[in-house]
Amino acid sequence: RIDPERLWADLMESARIGATAKGGICRLTLTDLDRQVRDWFRTAAESLGCTVTVDDMGTMFARRAGQRNDIPPIAMGSHLDTQPTGGKFDGTLGVLAALEALRALHRAGYETFAPIEVVNWTNEEGSRFAPAMIASGVFGGVFTRDWAVARQDRAGVSFGDALEAIGYRGAQRCGDHPLSAFFEVHIEQGPYLEMENKNIGVVTGVQAIRWYDVTFTGQDSHAGTTPMHRRHDALLGAARLVETVNAIALRHKGSVGTVGVLEVKPASTNVIPGETYLTIDCRDPDEAVLDRMEQDLNAAAEAIAHALGLEVVLKNIVRQPAVHFDPQCIEAVRRGAASAGLSTRDMMSGAGHDAAYVARVAPASMIFVPCKDGISHNEAEYSSKEQCANGAQVLLQAVLDYDRT
Amino acid sequence: RIDPERLWADLMESARIGATAKGGICRLTLTDLDRQVRDWFRTAAESLGCTVTVDDMGTMFARRAGQRNDIPPIAMGSHLDTQPTGGKFDGTLGVLAALEALRALHRAGYETFAPIEVVNWTNEEGSRFAPAMIASGVFGGVFTRDWAVARQDRAGVSFGDALEAIGYRGAQRCGDHPLSAFFEVHIEQGPYLEMENKNIGVVTGVQAIRWYDVTFTGQDSHAGTTPMHRRHDALLGAARLVETVNAIALRHKGSVGTVGVLEVKPASTNVIPGETYLTIDCRDPDEAVLDRMEQDLNAAAEAIAHALGLEVVLKNIVRQPAVHFDPQCIEAVRRGAASAGLSTRDMMSGAGHDAAYVARVAPASMIFVPCKDGISHNEAEYSSKEQCANGAQVLLQAVLDYDRT
Ligand SMILES: NC(=O)NCCC(=O)O
Ligand SMILES: NC(=O)NCCC(=O)O
Repeated sequence: RIDPERLWADLMESARIGATAKGGICRLTLTDLDRQVRDWFRTAAESLGCTVTVDDMGTMFARRAGQRNDIPPIAMGSHLDTQPTGGKFDGTLGVLAALEALRALHRAGYETFAPIEVVNWTNEEGSRFAPAMIASGVFGGVFTRDWAVARQDRAGVSFGDALEAIGYRGAQRCGDHPLSAFFEVHIEQGPYLEMENKNIGVVTGVQAIRWYDVTFTGQDSHAGTTPMHRRHDALLGAARLVETVNAIALRHKGSVGTVGVLEVKPASTNVIPGETYLTIDCRDPDEAVLDRMEQDLNAAAEAIAHALGLEVVLKNIVRQPAVHFDPQCIEAVRRGAASAGLSTRDMMSGAGHDAAYVARVAPASMIFVPCKDGISHNEAEYSSKEQCANGAQVLLQAVLDYDRT
Repeated sequence: RIDPERLWADLMESARIGATAKGGICRLTLTDLDRQVRDWFRTAAESLGCTVTVDDMGTMFARRAGQRNDIPPIAMGSHLDTQPTGGKFDGTLGVLAALEALRALHRAGYETFAPIEVVNWTNEEGSRFAPAMIASGVFGGVFTRDWAVARQDRAGVSFGDALEAIGYRGAQRCGDHPLSAFFEVHIEQGPYLEMENKNIGVVTGVQAIRWYDVTFTGQDSHAGTTPMHRRHDALLGAARLVETVNAIALRHKGSVGTVGVLEVKPASTNVIPGETYLTIDCRDPDEAVLDRMEQDLNAAAEAIAHALGLEVVLKNIVRQPAVHFDPQCIEAVRRGAASAGLSTRDMMSGAGHDAAYVARVAPASMIFVPCKDGISHNEAEYSSKEQCANGAQVLLQAVLDYDRT
């Protein structure tokens, strides 16, 4: 059995790295804070007798040997990077629950059949470098490594340079690391488990996700002297698109649409903005719905630009189809929850996860635990000690279940 | 007579300080580039035998003695700071036309009755520190000096510290510097002179201006997992207010309304924004119209916030009444243009100007010259050599006209 106190202590201790005033974490990927938490994780894993290796996307693998070390490991994990105003649980719980599961095996002197690994994937959040889940994406063959390392943050720093700078570029080629299976614990980040009073979400898949970058170009001009009918206001265009994204998402039950970033140039009170940049995030379990939303978005952007005399460029930068997890892994989670005496609910994930990309090259599934008010990507994000422990316990049992088959 | 080539050479030479790739200037107030252009101006003025003094708001006065040095000087000038993507003429023309007018007197060995001064006012643009025209505002008794030096830029640096840092805090108390009159040349920044093919705008006043700061607070939350009906999207609120500002301005013929700055937090593609900050700039020649716009704005902000479950704070930070210039100064400009054989048009200014604040403590007026397509606060801003020279010539004649009375 896993130790709830030990897991909680790990969560609170690592949360100091990048702690924010409002009780959250700001630990953007490949910053020095990311390096610090990686060092912390490496030390913790090595103290349990694990061997830690790193691939050339910065993915960390902490390995505990099994009886048969010629077969690929059963892996578990998630990510240690956070949003700019992220919480203590998103990602971190998945890595630390895996560490605690491994510690439980260590304490019990239990020898698994396959080797067991704890994985920390780089840049899951996608807030510093778009897209999200970039290392697991390369691992799963969705992105090429060359494309991934060339991604730049808003300050123009490339993923590759940032990785080099924190000293976490390993020798192994990302993807040259076969896995027998992959299990990921995560907070739900949505309201359903709490609303229905269930302990564990048995995650059957992840909804489809599309991201877009949009730029409107108009003409900088004086706010006091430029008559209303002579304006080409790039911010007015952006504002209309924000409203449209919301309206389009509302049209389809169950889908979501969000503008998370909006930047204005030149950003001066008395200047009509000549340029705006914004991001769009659209999701639905059904690809066909996203196709319709995309059509509507393109048409709306054109119409808005036309009406205001602007130029618009709308570019699709992420196109992640819906993922359906491996039936055997799903069953291992279901049995794990049952044998731990916990109530469950099957669900699709609204968020993207590393497991969704790993699922392309290895059997995978996920375990959700409830979080308070369904709030995530927020410093107030919270799951209780018991909820976290439940996730780790089901993870341990799912891995052992899978190991026995 | 002023020398068009000399004035143009000064414009082009000083434009190198802060030159942008697109042919404009980025010379934000109280930065090191501002220091460089101040040093340049001081040297140029001293080489004409002027004495340069600086007040405790950083205002520079370059003085040429007259026959009667016990009476207050007739001053002319404008500002050398620019917008982030500003042009080569806004403000700079007013200072350099004044310098050229003074140089013409110097060349001719002409002795005026009153002393003559060229003034460079600090932070006219208001893009680094709000509000605009802060030094002339203190000079005119609109703001207190203590309040003004405590103003902070978006990085939290105060006006006072920035002024100290570039070494331009003088000993004289801002405002303890009586003027017999003040004349300011400026590009029109609007389309009317060009449209009507007139050489000179005889500026009779400046329309009323109000600025507002607005903050919407909602709740950061995950873009993929938060259902549409559980959102408190601070960016959607801001977008609706951008649309509203535009609609309110369109409702009143001749008024303008602009959102120039919009900042989003936490600014991550997959996070519903929990906070937005935006600025509003509203103008009309008629105060009563601005009162109605303000009522509409307040009501709209409340309604938007209520509908989306947000909090909103809308704060009026600038409240500048319409200004009517001194009839005698206006006449001096009109006669100056006539004697130079130039066509004129009376007009109210759409933009705020230092002369508008100086007008509270000294007789003042302004001279406008056309600019291409009415474009300003834009790197492409342009007035021809001849148009600039016309402004300087009328300035010289208006000053001499006023000096004779
Ligand atoms: N789980 C999670 O927050 N992932 C970030 C990627 C996304 O879903 O946008
Ligand atoms: N002339 C000018 O651009 N002034 C800036 C102040 C304003 O009108 O907003």
